[in-house]
Amino acid sequence: MWLGKVVGTVVAPTKNDTLIGSKLLIVQPLNLDGMNTISLQVAVDTVGAGNGETVLVLTGSSARRIMQNEDSAVDAAIVGIVEHIELEGISKSQYWVNKV
Amino acid sequence: MWLGKVVGTVVAPTKNDTLIGSKLLIVQPLNLDGMNTISLQVAVDTVGAGNGETVLVLTGSSARRIMQNEDSAVDAAIVGIVEHIELEGISKSQYWVNKV
Amino acid sequence: MWLGKVVGTVVAPTKNDTLIGSKLLIVQPLNLDGMNTISLQVAVDTVGAGNGETVLVLTGSSARRIMQNEDSAVDAAIVGIVEHIELEGISKSQYWVNKV
Amino acid sequence: MWLGKVVGTVVAPTKNDTLIGSKLLIVQPLNLDGMNTISLQVAVDTVGAGNGETVLVLTGSSARRIMQNEDSAVDAAIVGIVEHIELEGISKSQYWVNKV
Amino acid sequence: MWLGKVVGTVVAPTKNDTLIGSKLLIVQPLNLDGMNTISLQVAVDTVGAGNGETVLVLTGSSARRIMQNEDSAVDAAIVGIVEHIELEGISKSQYWVNKV
Repeated sequence: MWLGKVVGTVVAPTKNDTLIGSKLLIVQPLNLDGMNTISLQVAVDTVGAGNGETVLVLTGSSARRIMQNEDSAVDAAIVGIVEHIELEGISKSQYWVNKV
Repeated sequence: MWLGKVVGTVVAPTKNDTLIGSKLLIVQPLNLDGMNTISLQVAVDTVGAGNGETVLVLTGSSARRIMQNEDSAVDAAIVGIVEHIELEGISKSQYWVNKV
Repeated sequence: MWLGKVVGTVVAPTKNDTLIGSKLLIVQPLNLDGMNTISLQVAVDTVGAGNGETVLVLTGSSARRIMQNEDSAVDAAIVGIVEHIELEGISKSQYWVNKV
Repeated sequence: MWLGKVVGTVVAPTKNDTLIGSKLLIVQPLNLDGMNTISLQVAVDTVGAGNGETVLVLTGSSARRIMQNEDSAVDAAIVGIVEHIELEGISKSQYWVNKV
Repeated sequence: MWLGKVVGTVVAPTKNDTLIGSKLLIVQPLNLDGMNTISLQVAVDTVGAGNGETVLVLTGSSARRIMQNEDSAVDAAIVGIVEHIELEGISKSQYWVNKV
């Protein structure tokens, strides 16, 4: 799993049937310095995450298997909302939330 | 899943039998600054996507499983056409479409 | 598998049911020069690892399959605590532990 | 799948039994500027590809499943020989073949 | 699969039961210029590889499936010892062996 910040939403009227009704969120991977701008990942929300929240993203076949339909067009799912993280004793969640 | 822009088409007369009749599109991953030139990914179109469109790409075994033939030579599939995305309240789809 | 150093803990009260009771550790990938700051990976601890330790991280479907529940929301698991590593005859574990 | 150029051959007399008789080709990933020197990937040829050709590479469990033996030691397979690609209307195959 | 050079050994007394008795080798990915220092990968040896050798590394679920125990904590396995590689007609194995 990796840590990311929800930065947006995808609106895609034309999509695979198994994605109809899913909330498709754009999640930016985080590193120790804050945001990592390498790529824009999209994950299906399964825990009620919202914009600006730090989340835990599950990938690959494990993400597909937690969906109710085993043949879902899903390879990434948000499976946790991070309240805070402790990095060698220091909480950085506030740092990230404020920085971007 | 990741967001990308369709930038081209692959013509490959010699290919695995399960790919005959498939539309093989070249998709460039996007990041927050626009295009990411790291790599050229190829995905099978399943939603009628065309050149210049921003799309949602599914990868790995999940992409294979949404094909009609479970043993398809597929590890990436376009599963959505992005109408627009909202990044912290600002739609960026127009930005990307015009930039490249 | 890859080598990393445990640098923190994730606190996420809202999460997938299969993760309840799991210890979610943040692991930083290591390279030959020490820490690699590219990304923050999260792995479920299965061997009693703690902060500052160098660990062996298993990824993908293999990580899910070693969990007791085959449908766990897991794609990365700590499967070993590294006592030391020998790089062309020189142990570097002490180097990493002291450096960061 | 990704696009690459065949740049060499691997000779490995000691190898997993399922690889005996396979042609192991070294494929260099391509990007929009030509060659990407990040890594050297090895893929099993399934379509009669040769040195210098631009090919389509399939990865992961999908690559294993197209082999005749379901337990093959394969995670990457060449599944197409690219005649040319069209990038926003311009064919770049000649460019790559001549450049390197 | 990817090409790498064995640069060390991992000693981890506390580990998943399925790894007991396995030789855990540290393999550095190679690129066209020699060593790639991005990351330190660990693979289970299945062919009797040793320090300094150039090897072929298999990843993902394919690596797990070639182990005798289908639920092994393995996502990377050394499946070949490279005698030499031919890059556009020039053997580079000696180059790598001498360089590092």
